[in-house]
Amino acid sequence: MNDEKYSLLFEQERSKIDSKLEEAFKNRSPASLYEPSAYIVGSEGKRIRPLLVLFSAKAAGTNFEQAYNAAVAVELLHNFTLVHDDLMDNADKRRGRATLHIKYDNNTAILAGDSLLSVAYEFLLKDCNGNSKEVISSFTRGLIEVCEGQSYDTDFELRKEVSMDEYLMMINKKTAAMIRMCCEIGVLIANGNSEILRGLSDYGQNLGMAFQIQDDLLDITAEENKLGKKIGGDLIEGKKTFLFISALEKSKNTDRRELLKIINNKGIEPAEVEKYKLIYKKLNVLEDAKAMINSYTGKALNSLDVIEKDEDREMLKWMADFLLKRNK
Amino acid sequence: MNDEKYSLLFEQERSKIDSKLEEAFKNRSPASLYEPSAYIVGSEGKRIRPLLVLFSAKAAGTNFEQAYNAAVAVELLHNFTLVHDDLMDNADKRRGRATLHIKYDNNTAILAGDSLLSVAYEFLLKDCNGNSKEVISSFTRGLIEVCEGQSYDTDFELRKEVSMDEYLMMINKKTAAMIRMCCEIGVLIANGNSEILRGLSDYGQNLGMAFQIQDDLLDITAEENKLGKKIGGDLIEGKKTFLFISALEKSKNTDRRELLKIINNKGIEPAEVEKYKLIYKKLNVLEDAKAMINSYTGKALNSLDVIEKDEDREMLKWMADFLLKRNK
Repeated sequence: MNDEKYSLLFEQERSKIDSKLEEAFKNRSPASLYEPSAYIVGSEGKRIRPLLVLFSAKAAGTNFEQAYNAAVAVELLHNFTLVHDDLMDNADKRRGRATLHIKYDNNTAILAGDSLLSVAYEFLLKDCNGNSKEVISSFTRGLIEVCEGQSYDTDFELRKEVSMDEYLMMINKKTAAMIRMCCEIGVLIANGNSEILRGLSDYGQNLGMAFQIQDDLLDITAEENKLGKKIGGDLIEGKKTFLFISALEKSKNTDRRELLKIINNKGIEPAEVEKYKLIYKKLNVLEDAKAMINSYTGKALNSLDVIEKDEDREMLKWMADFLLKRNK
Repeated sequence: MNDEKYSLLFEQERSKIDSKLEEAFKNRSPASLYEPSAYIVGSEGKRIRPLLVLFSAKAAGTNFEQAYNAAVAVELLHNFTLVHDDLMDNADKRRGRATLHIKYDNNTAILAGDSLLSVAYEFLLKDCNGNSKEVISSFTRGLIEVCEGQSYDTDFELRKEVSMDEYLMMINKKTAAMIRMCCEIGVLIANGNSEILRGLSDYGQNLGMAFQIQDDLLDITAEENKLGKKIGGDLIEGKKTFLFISALEKSKNTDRRELLKIINNKGIEPAEVEKYKLIYKKLNVLEDAKAMINSYTGKALNSLDVIEKDEDREMLKWMADFLLKRNK
């Protein structure tokens, strides 16, 4: 029953965010800049980040209306990272559609990415009243961390060994910092007190960690068509995910030699995915990932105790649950 | 005498900016991100934009100390545009050194550019007190316009004809908006009144226009070694500069046919530069450019009447003069 209520609210607000994002690039010129931006932003997304802004703002005592522009801002920032990451990774598909640099060209992707970021700040400023400095500082810190995280991620791809601690530091910057920032922005716009700021900041941080490890896990466990990309893509590309690092740390002898091949050959053939899935299963790393996800999620949920109203707290709990149950 | 005084102040503050820029990337990780940033920012530059922040702040009633971080911020923003523009233009030299994507690689240039922008906001925020929203709005507007200007510039390269009005609109966004923004930021940090904000905003805008047309002119009139790049480079690349558009508008018969060849062939051979210089001279477009530069500079200088203290006004006059007398 409650589940349905929150799911309905989620869908209702998601669709509002979608319309606001559609509006964001209307009446702007040149089309050569803003059409590509509208294209990427218009592709189907879960809109988790803007919804976290809204639900955090509400939990900290204001209403959604005060935070829609900030919500749009974080989604634009997220799309900026997608456009530049896809270009750097040479990815050709995103959310089932051609990536921006494939649909247009590399230069358009660079410039449209930059422009998405500039318009993100413009939207954020619209919802800044009183404590602009704190709001924009939080947003900027998120941006800085996501750049650093992306850079570590690239470094790690080139290294032979990456420890679990290093991996966790990297995803903290690359993924969790921005989820945390969304929650902070919501609280700051609502002028929430330092206790709720801390609580929701921790919630976002831990949720972000769980979210990224879940992403790594889904590379192996997702149903093919739901993920919108090949199962085992991370293995094929030789990425140092939670599963891989955990497996390498636990492995011995033959398994270890097989895993090291992934590093030395910078990836594997699609036909080898099954073999590595078996190694992962034997080493129990899928269960390790689930345990880690549960641990971070538990911390995230505990942080919500600072929220006064039951329904605001339940909404954010539902959100965590929704993210964990996702299969894509 | 006065000239020497301002020139000394200029050099003194420029060297302070240089040290602060050098400091900006110390104690930051990962090196893969911040070393490239330090590399590009460390290359020799005139530092016009940060100095305009400082001199505008002083003219609006505060001291330099209040505006150094904002000064660093605008230079970082400027360097962000250089890194991404050089990548998009496939340029291999900048200020006599390898461009960032040549020295490192394309992905590093994308990410270091993004990061420069993120750190720019971080620095700007340090000097925001009280009216953060206005300061950051001005900065963000400048960023949005520079992206739009770059996009128009690319559009125009692909078009057969571009009118002088369109060209002026483009350079207004691509170059003048950021110079204007530097002056606005200085005034806003000093909490200057609306009259001085308007005056220095107009000064920056008009100075920026003069600066860009001067840049177009220098492509033909600069001494080879001083420009640090080939004379006639714009002609060789087939760029639609002030000189080219003015020449095309005034030309008839043979001259027009020769000029249209540049568009149709998307540039010329280096050996043809002399021929086109003669056409430009015959059509008097170098003089047209000088007249336009003088007109914009005149407007810029007139806007300085709002400044109370003689020496603050004279410093900004000296700056305009310095920019016009430059030969690179």
